[in-house]
Amino acid sequence: MTAAAPSVLDAVRFTADGLVPAIAQQHDTGEVLMMAWMTRETLAETLETGRVCYWSRSRGAPWRKGETSGQVQTLKALRVDCDGDTLLLLVDQVGVACHTGRRTCFYREVQGPDTLAVIAEPEADPAALYGTPKA
Amino acid sequence: MTAAAPSVLDAVRFTADGLVPAIAQQHDTGEVLMMAWMTRETLAETLETGRVCYWSRSRGAPWRKGETSGQVQTLKALRVDCDGDTLLLLVDQVGVACHTGRRTCFYREVQGPDTLAVIAEPEADPAALYGTPKA
Repeated sequence: MTAAAPSVLDAVRFTADGLVPAIAQQHDTGEVLMMAWMTRETLAETLETGRVCYWSRSRGAPWRKGETSGQVQTLKALRVDCDGDTLLLLVDQVGVACHTGRRTCFYREVQGPDTLAVIAEPEADPAALYGTPKA
Repeated sequence: MTAAAPSVLDAVRFTADGLVPAIAQQHDTGEVLMMAWMTRETLAETLETGRVCYWSRSRGAPWRKGETSGQVQTLKALRVDCDGDTLLLLVDQVGVACHTGRRTCFYREVQGPDTLAVIAEPEADPAALYGTPKA
């Protein structure tokens, strides 16, 4: 996938803030890894490079997934939903997707009226991934 | 799952508009079906009834999935992501999730710089699902 893909980009409906939600799913296992946001520019970069680049709303800057942690996402396919306002990225995730060191960000499950259970343990040490001291 | 699940609801971070994105995934095949939005109230209803209820942003009203079309989603599990601002619903989808009559809303795939290809055909007739005349 090369060039700016204008007709593909024009099929996407961005919010008033210029964002579109992007769901990342591991292409072979079907595991939903995370949901983040893209701008037109980071979507174009993702299509051009084949490396997933989100938009960090907190930092107000492109977020090249894995740039710090090494836990990159390679794009295998990109799908657009029926009304063009959500993306589904089929990716190959190196290591873990979640900043907590877990494979997926969706590691908490409702298991009763007052119970949100942790259903997955970290597979990597966040301090090692990000070079920050342990809490 | 019964009662209002306050501690579970309090773990969810809603937007300033009172919404949270909810990804629906078929529980056994892993297929990502759709993404829609929930309010605190429709999330509570979903947990209480086991039937998925979104919030229709266009209608400004609860959207009990399948109420018109019969294509209901039964909740099998509900997961919350690491920062509490996205939900993953593991569901059992009756029939089709998409208003176009396709199983999933993500039926268009980027297949080149200018090509957004349709990769799935309708399995149901939208006119039959919604009782509206064909376009």
